[in-house]
Amino acid sequence: MQDKSFLMIPGPTPVPESVLVELARHPIGHRSKEFSDIFMYCIEGLKWLGKTKDSDAFIYTASGTGAMEAAIANVLSPGDKVLSLVIGVFGKRFGQIAQTFGAQVEMLTVEMGKVIDLKVLEEKLSQDKNKEIKAVTVTHSETSTGAANDLENISKIVKKHGALLVVDAVTSLGCMNLEIDNWGLDIVVSGSQKGFMIPPGLSFIYVSPKAWEYYKKSKCPKFYWDFSKQKKSLDEQTTPFTPNVSFTSALKIAFEMMRKEGLENIIQRHARLKTRLRTGLKELGLKLLTEDKDASSAITAIYPPGGVSIPDIRSAYKKDWDITVANGQDVLKDKIFRIGHLGFVGDRDIEMTLAVTAKIFEKLSLRGF
Amino acid sequence: MQDKSFLMIPGPTPVPESVLVELARHPIGHRSKEFSDIFMYCIEGLKWLGKTKDSDAFIYTASGTGAMEAAIANVLSPGDKVLSLVIGVFGKRFGQIAQTFGAQVEMLTVEMGKVIDLKVLEEKLSQDKNKEIKAVTVTHSETSTGAANDLENISKIVKKHGALLVVDAVTSLGCMNLEIDNWGLDIVVSGSQKGFMIPPGLSFIYVSPKAWEYYKKSKCPKFYWDFSKQKKSLDEQTTPFTPNVSFTSALKIAFEMMRKEGLENIIQRHARLKTRLRTGLKELGLKLLTEDKDASSAITAIYPPGGVSIPDIRSAYKKDWDITVANGQDVLKDKIFRIGHLGFVGDRDIEMTLAVTAKIFEKLSLRGF
Repeated sequence: MQDKSFLMIPGPTPVPESVLVELARHPIGHRSKEFSDIFMYCIEGLKWLGKTKDSDAFIYTASGTGAMEAAIANVLSPGDKVLSLVIGVFGKRFGQIAQTFGAQVEMLTVEMGKVIDLKVLEEKLSQDKNKEIKAVTVTHSETSTGAANDLENISKIVKKHGALLVVDAVTSLGCMNLEIDNWGLDIVVSGSQKGFMIPPGLSFIYVSPKAWEYYKKSKCPKFYWDFSKQKKSLDEQTTPFTPNVSFTSALKIAFEMMRKEGLENIIQRHARLKTRLRTGLKELGLKLLTEDKDASSAITAIYPPGGVSIPDIRSAYKKDWDITVANGQDVLKDKIFRIGHLGFVGDRDIEMTLAVTAKIFEKLSLRGF
Repeated sequence: MQDKSFLMIPGPTPVPESVLVELARHPIGHRSKEFSDIFMYCIEGLKWLGKTKDSDAFIYTASGTGAMEAAIANVLSPGDKVLSLVIGVFGKRFGQIAQTFGAQVEMLTVEMGKVIDLKVLEEKLSQDKNKEIKAVTVTHSETSTGAANDLENISKIVKKHGALLVVDAVTSLGCMNLEIDNWGLDIVVSGSQKGFMIPPGLSFIYVSPKAWEYYKKSKCPKFYWDFSKQKKSLDEQTTPFTPNVSFTSALKIAFEMMRKEGLENIIQRHARLKTRLRTGLKELGLKLLTEDKDASSAITAIYPPGGVSIPDIRSAYKKDWDITVANGQDVLKDKIFRIGHLGFVGDRDIEMTLAVTAKIFEKLSLRGF
């Protein structure tokens, strides 16, 4: 049935009608007062969402990985020691970007599906007597596994050491609680196609006063990503380069919706959807990759019942129900499938997903496995 | 009157209704066969537009400046000698990006409004007996002045020397003739909000076999911009990072329109609009920044009649006629105004612009100056 496709992947996520309609409006000039007002509304929205007054918020026309590169290029110098906390594909990517820019990266890697053990991290950083580790990169919600690190307590440990904390919040912001000022997060990056409820095309970055100190010493080359260019333009309520005007206008609509719902309500909704989905999937006899205590509110990764292939499962969702679910990534490819439930997702969508999932495994004659 | 705004700036440019409608469609998953087909149609469209079989074409989720950074970061190494041909703001920017990445940049700068003198360039390169200049950057159509370099002959001179030719075709591609293979252009960058008729948000890059040789030796750090990541994904008919799905679909619609019109017809239309606009403006007694022989088909820069301020002129266009025209940039700010006439612009728009311009200067009591 035409136009009935439904995305249950961790991005692109479903987009509200009012955002889609806004995208169909003719772009306005980006050096106009009208655009400045829209742009500044979005910047204020970002600060509200990240619970920060102290950090600057910038918008890049780029995918989330672009903002990750910006995070690295603006605060590090070749030779800097970096500890990358790796709980999946995107945690590893952060370390790889730092390596690309010449950092000496040590990866603290855990099995996919698990999260960083706070004691191990504390031990690791306490061994760094000479404070050689300049920065720690961490993923809040790991898209590849659906596991979420205890960011608040990781931040406490990193602050005690003194390193800069650089956070990938691509699938957590606007979905899970994240408090930049209270928790002392130095750099936070995110992307538009997740909790922000707009399509992929923009990414976001928050820069704390401490990160600005690092910026001053950074020797990595950057032009498009350069924080100073962003800051100088932001002070004039504009952007250094031609922005994605249409997406900025759409983001404003999404922020209006988010403010109407309320941030705590958004966070509670995502937590509720996660819990209901996990409970329902377990009732169907399915095994989940992460433990409940480590589960992200954004994505759930599910093992197939014995003998059933992931491509067959994804094909059943797609062909019989017109729902797209994601495969695993990297070593988890064809080992798990992933259901995204972040952004413009409501209780009704979760009940539908559970009902459909039950039908699928019934049809595959696999109930009771 | 609501929704009656009209953009006559060099980007964002007017967007066709069918492209806007496509933008309002729900994004599809980017790892689907459906998206791969759309994506590959766009890649083929890019190759058609740039008249190339030999170069690879890549799409970045980024502004045009992002693709300029990609061009530099992928082929240069710190210390490399670069000659930047500067006829305006964007020519200078290319040199500045190369400097940021550690290149030794010499800028061959001409007065704004003029173009590169082929004899001067030939002389300059012939002095480089030891072939120390690794790359030459050049702007095809300079957005800040509306002047267009003789790219075909510049390329001949650079090829004779042997340096890599890196071209900013942001406002020329899809508007003026540009032949990547025949002219031997090594890297060409462009942006979506220009001749491509879609809003700002994507940029494009072409990479020749010779540029790939440079890539192998390049020591500048890059991850998001990395040509190899693009190429590896392109070979699998996909993108390395989550692409702007909506804009890629919109670009497909735009390419369908362009192919229907035909490339030579598009180029002829832009040339015709340029000539008609320039003739009409001169008939109104206005003085243009560039000489006819150097005029870009994309933008025309106009001096104000004596005593009239640029802000007053722009305000008259905006307040009385709801048309946005651009100010000058850099040293030309408040010295000229610029009318963009690229992309989704037809003969009717030019006649309207001329009629309105006549009215504006009549009202300002300035006819006959």
